[in-house]
Amino acid sequence: MQLGVIGLGRMGQIVVERVLAAGHDVVAFDIDEAAVATAADAGAETADSLSEVADSLGEEKHVWLMVPAGDAVDAALDDLEPHLSADDVVVDGGNSHFEDSVRRAERTDAAYLDCGTSGGPAGAELGFSLMIGGPEDAYAELAPVFDAVATGPDGHDRMGPSGSGHYVKMVHNGVEYALMQAYGEGFELLHEGRYDLDLEAVARTWNNGAVIRSWLLELCEEAFHEEGTDLGDVADHVAGGSTGTWTVQEALEREVPVPLIHQALAERFASRRDRFSRRLANRLRYGFGRHEVARRGD
Amino acid sequence: MQLGVIGLGRMGQIVVERVLAAGHDVVAFDIDEAAVATAADAGAETADSLSEVADSLGEEKHVWLMVPAGDAVDAALDDLEPHLSADDVVVDGGNSHFEDSVRRAERTDAAYLDCGTSGGPAGAELGFSLMIGGPEDAYAELAPVFDAVATGPDGHDRMGPSGSGHYVKMVHNGVEYALMQAYGEGFELLHEGRYDLDLEAVARTWNNGAVIRSWLLELCEEAFHEEGTDLGDVADHVAGGSTGTWTVQEALEREVPVPLIHQALAERFASRRDRFSRRLANRLRYGFGRHEVARRGD
Amino acid sequence: MQLGVIGLGRMGQIVVERVLAAGHDVVAFDIDEAAVATAADAGAETADSLSEVADSLGEEKHVWLMVPAGDAVDAALDDLEPHLSADDVVVDGGNSHFEDSVRRAERTDAAYLDCGTSGGPAGAELGFSLMIGGPEDAYAELAPVFDAVATGPDGHDRMGPSGSGHYVKMVHNGVEYALMQAYGEGFELLHEGRYDLDLEAVARTWNNGAVIRSWLLELCEEAFHEEGTDLGDVADHVAGGSTGTWTVQEALEREVPVPLIHQALAERFASRRDRFSRRLANRLRYGFGRHEVARRGD
Amino acid sequence: MQLGVIGLGRMGQIVVERVLAAGHDVVAFDIDEAAVATAADAGAETADSLSEVADSLGEEKHVWLMVPAGDAVDAALDDLEPHLSADDVVVDGGNSHFEDSVRRAERTDAAYLDCGTSGGPAGAELGFSLMIGGPEDAYAELAPVFDAVATGPDGHDRMGPSGSGHYVKMVHNGVEYALMQAYGEGFELLHEGRYDLDLEAVARTWNNGAVIRSWLLELCEEAFHEEGTDLGDVADHVAGGSTGTWTVQEALEREVPVPLIHQALAERFASRRDRFSRRLANRLRYGFGRHEVARRGD
Repeated sequence: MQLGVIGLGRMGQIVVERVLAAGHDVVAFDIDEAAVATAADAGAETADSLSEVADSLGEEKHVWLMVPAGDAVDAALDDLEPHLSADDVVVDGGNSHFEDSVRRAERTDAAYLDCGTSGGPAGAELGFSLMIGGPEDAYAELAPVFDAVATGPDGHDRMGPSGSGHYVKMVHNGVEYALMQAYGEGFELLHEGRYDLDLEAVARTWNNGAVIRSWLLELCEEAFHEEGTDLGDVADHVAGGSTGTWTVQEALEREVPVPLIHQALAERFASRRDRFSRRLANRLRYGFGRHEVARRGD
Repeated sequence: MQLGVIGLGRMGQIVVERVLAAGHDVVAFDIDEAAVATAADAGAETADSLSEVADSLGEEKHVWLMVPAGDAVDAALDDLEPHLSADDVVVDGGNSHFEDSVRRAERTDAAYLDCGTSGGPAGAELGFSLMIGGPEDAYAELAPVFDAVATGPDGHDRMGPSGSGHYVKMVHNGVEYALMQAYGEGFELLHEGRYDLDLEAVARTWNNGAVIRSWLLELCEEAFHEEGTDLGDVADHVAGGSTGTWTVQEALEREVPVPLIHQALAERFASRRDRFSRRLANRLRYGFGRHEVARRGD
Repeated sequence: MQLGVIGLGRMGQIVVERVLAAGHDVVAFDIDEAAVATAADAGAETADSLSEVADSLGEEKHVWLMVPAGDAVDAALDDLEPHLSADDVVVDGGNSHFEDSVRRAERTDAAYLDCGTSGGPAGAELGFSLMIGGPEDAYAELAPVFDAVATGPDGHDRMGPSGSGHYVKMVHNGVEYALMQAYGEGFELLHEGRYDLDLEAVARTWNNGAVIRSWLLELCEEAFHEEGTDLGDVADHVAGGSTGTWTVQEALEREVPVPLIHQALAERFASRRDRFSRRLANRLRYGFGRHEVARRGD
Repeated sequence: MQLGVIGLGRMGQIVVERVLAAGHDVVAFDIDEAAVATAADAGAETADSLSEVADSLGEEKHVWLMVPAGDAVDAALDDLEPHLSADDVVVDGGNSHFEDSVRRAERTDAAYLDCGTSGGPAGAELGFSLMIGGPEDAYAELAPVFDAVATGPDGHDRMGPSGSGHYVKMVHNGVEYALMQAYGEGFELLHEGRYDLDLEAVARTWNNGAVIRSWLLELCEEAFHEEGTDLGDVADHVAGGSTGTWTVQEALEREVPVPLIHQALAERFASRRDRFSRRLANRLRYGFGRHEVARRGD
């Protein structure tokens, strides 16, 4: 099978390599020439433009988009559109909002698969988890590619119609935020607690048989191994938040209570800003109790 | 009626003044001589020791303790104990833990009233809200004093047996934490929101007829008036927390969910410490996504 | 001054009555004839259609819309539009989303004031709190009407440009949800706590001088008075939620942490649905610990 | 090595079997004769009393307690005490509170190891995660037994001095509550969401390579496989909570914010009781807005 891969960042390169390793052909493109060169070294045919990718793929084109969510996906689709017909399949493997994916599926002549991709850099060896939405035929047709990119046949599945792949991935990320913060609370309590503990040893012991063992806990173990039990100079600043925000927005629309996911997201926001609410509480304690007001610079 | 008042801090002085103003006699004592002098200026008889207070009160002694919660209450009771009989009444008007009050009520020969006192400095003119636990007879006997110290007859009531006054006050304070934080969240959103607002004007408009009008909101209005709409140099550091902690501890024992009260308490803790949990989340995002780690000093 | 009032529900009637009582003239309309008759009894001139309202008002029309948020506002504006010019002022006194108000202000030829209205039925005697957004001139022109409808000059204010009135009202309601839930947690703990308490007496004592006294706490006192200390047959089902949802959505966009407001909203959602999350937790405890699974109908 | 095992419930039997399988000798006791018979079938020597266990073990006794946390541990220690000396080692493998373990370690003449044990029934084949507190010598001496019971050398470690094993296990369980609830929120949103999803397929896809893969997620997959995607008749009732309560209590003492762990615990409480707080909110909406009150039986 032949696959066009658009977007050769870290994740895109892994797609290229795993598809090649499974014996398929790849036509790769990125606006970054160095990334294209890397793909060429790996054995991919390369192209100088999206049009050229399309031309190289002949009939029944299969294209995997691995570009940043948002305008870049629409721009890529704009360029591909003139070359696409109902026999073609486009996969969006990025973190698009599911409503964008529904819209794009309706707009394009090709079959459109929205593919939530999870796994991070470990995916290079292990493969990814792929949550896929869109037409059944197109999913079946691309199965060999999904087998190659995923951890195996159990690592990918069709969730349902258009948008459902990115929908499930959105919720996956919301859960991810909450899991990270839950482990964080536990380790914070241990760190501030009554015993002088080696948190790497705690994480290792837990990872070997405890109920809360997980891949994220293995990453905790690795973090303590590399940064030290007090996390060295790692700052209290958590970036990101878009997929978590989408999850809470969707929960609001569906009227589903998600207090842990919301709180985990709020912790990220809180790590990045002044907390006016607490400053007011500080001042109010003076108002009713004449407690001394803590001032900046005190 | 004659009342001994032990402890002449800000709250104790208000008790002295309001009881005197109602036409009763006061015998006042504090280890701080300046505080004793202030009470004397207000018209109180003074004493040099707890024993002397007891001696001055004659038969059927009425003593109001307004000392810091904890050891100071036990120390005062130790000194008073030899002078007390079943005809006497001791009121603890401080923020004692209700279980301490139950224990003290059992230990002392006098009738013991635990009296949760709320109202802050405004109580000087307005009077306090008094939540009182202990024997009905003793409560009835002290009613003239409670009338004087409270906002009036509706400002004090017997909640139930020993401990119930401080129990209700404990929960009052837990609610207080949550109310403060709730207003804080609203003003934080307005402060960070889409419009350039005068928060004092917002608070004033709300205080005149809106559903959320309250005394705490009047204190918000005052805070914005005095500190400015951005709260000037008021720091993100909220002190205190003992009664809120007791409230959550009791909720845990009774298996009652109190997420807002707990969160308001957790915000205070968070304002006073490094957040290890978020530092770990920061680092984990590198682990699975190779997102750049924010470092202290970046 | 002459004011057209469109929408004669409970809130609209109060506007009519208070404006009349202040000596102004009112032209009233509603699709419900009985409501129109009530306004007529109160002394208002009435009309059979929006066009007729417009015709009755002559030059420099002042129209107060008090219709349900959403399509009804747009429908009323559609009907009024042909009659409006730059000299006229339209007030939307309902709970519209601030972005709708911005859009409507841009679309209409008249000056458009978005007016958040708070206070509930007590507003009939007391007046409302009015948070107003839009052009300064129009706000100044309508001041006599606002004086009449509000608790007085301090009960209304111009928050800022178009949308800011409904923006501040939206946040007001988010705070309101959190305050209600905070009081609820406190009373739940008292209800399930160690003492057999009269919650009406607790609320009354608090309302007389305690830090947490407020209008909502007066409503708690009234609720316990009318329903009993165990709230009788009042169900665990909290309706509503749109303005709270908007508040959390806006907080997500501004990246402001609002855990208490979110939790209060989530409690409403939770009161109205099956909690799948907890059913899964129930089942998972069997998975790792062979704890018995509680089944429906057990 | 020879090991006395006291308490032959599900977990105790696994200890017996794994220790025997590693080539050691076991003397087993339980008050339940059927449980003793099971241990005998597995190859253990059995005893009729704790004294007989002690007698059978000779010098340098090694005893593993696997009895319910609380009084049963103290009762077992009372019986063992006369037979113990400084050369002996007692392991408490149950879910004791860490402060009880510190107290017991001080009281007993033997070396005392508090051993948090996690892993559930899967531990029969895989082994457990063992978090151990107490004297280094005793830990080293029992290492062969820990190797046998744990998943291997990485599945057990000495956390620190007395109590630290149960301390780390307590926090483990607090995190466990939060993880369960986080997955639950995600699956609840998917269940109530826009797509008709097969939640077993979602869990399986996630377990194969996604960031949030874990043993608990494997148990989710199993739960959906066995109960169906809507969890059949599994009730909204989550039992348990003691170790989670201890975790939050400790967090309160250390002033560490643990909002997710607290919320997960509060969800358990909420699943088991009437929510008075929400009933009051329901009623308050009538108070300020004349919204209809939902009544039981409506």
